[in-house]
Amino acid sequence: MQELKDRIREQGRNLGNGIIKVDGFLTHQVDLHLMTLAGQELARRFTHTGANKVLTVEISGIAPAVLTALAMQVPLVFARKAKPITMPSQVYETTAPSHTKGGLVPIIISPEYLGPGDRVLIVDDFLATGQTIAALARLVQESGASLVGIGAVIEKSFEGGRQHLSPLNVPIESLVVIERMDDHQIVFAH
Amino acid sequence: MQELKDRIREQGRNLGNGIIKVDGFLTHQVDLHLMTLAGQELARRFTHTGANKVLTVEISGIAPAVLTALAMQVPLVFARKAKPITMPSQVYETTAPSHTKGGLVPIIISPEYLGPGDRVLIVDDFLATGQTIAALARLVQESGASLVGIGAVIEKSFEGGRQHLSPLNVPIESLVVIERMDDHQIVFAH
Repeated sequence: MQELKDRIREQGRNLGNGIIKVDGFLTHQVDLHLMTLAGQELARRFTHTGANKVLTVEISGIAPAVLTALAMQVPLVFARKAKPITMPSQVYETTAPSHTKGGLVPIIISPEYLGPGDRVLIVDDFLATGQTIAALARLVQESGASLVGIGAVIEKSFEGGRQHLSPLNVPIESLVVIERMDDHQIVFAH
Repeated sequence: MQELKDRIREQGRNLGNGIIKVDGFLTHQVDLHLMTLAGQELARRFTHTGANKVLTVEISGIAPAVLTALAMQVPLVFARKAKPITMPSQVYETTAPSHTKGGLVPIIISPEYLGPGDRVLIVDDFLATGQTIAALARLVQESGASLVGIGAVIEKSFEGGRQHLSPLNVPIESLVVIERMDDHQIVFAH
């Protein structure tokens, strides 16, 4: 997606250790014009899957997932990392590595909003190692729903997430692919 | 807002202790049609303020704030509860009571995305005690930006948030007002 690549070139910063700063338009401040285009493009790429639900996990996946679900005219479910008191006692739960806290964090979905008959598109801001998305995919499987696709705004292909998720055997789409981040550069795949 | 009131009547549940379950359309699963109407209505009520930025805090404020910012064609900033490594060392930080964890949690905004010249509309899913919104308002003040309004999807007027926030002297709007929640009922103010 050219607009997104241009924005990363203008405002993205390579902070070292594979960390990219995109908090001016995606992960802290959100540019709604750009995210609307991103959501529409993800929706277009997954129309053929017949997804009837978008799934993401708090926190920075929520904005792009909202705009994808809006474009697809389907509901969004965002998995939680702490169980709210409004959830029933029995939930779908697994763990994934935390980016900000280190260690593992819970990933929790209420069985009220995911189950057999659902065709689920997972959307997240980043596809990096794929471990968070794999955790969401486990919960989709546990619920009896069908996973039909995985979409990310930014893929860091050098972290191997696409290979890690390939056994799920669903289409994986990202709007830009970053191939390398050495020497303070941000190198796109194509 | 009639559509929202109808939905709360149909699907909302009073779990006791002032807790309302609205996770089928707002706080876990998000109905994008309903949230688009909510965002458009909040945008309409605050057009006169000349807001150039919407501010919320993770987590369940993000979806309604995204749709309000989208309708107003302004950027959204969502404050964080943990400091990501992409933030500079100097940040605006305060604390607010945690709903899910008990105790106090940090509320953090990068000075890169809030400052003098910004006219800020705070949007959150709930206006209850007003303590979270008051925390956001302190950060707006610290940044040198102007707070121009406070919008909430659901107000629980019996928790006194509107009184708590009245010294801020800005318009406060909520799309539905719940006046009482005793005897398993959900009683709207009007």
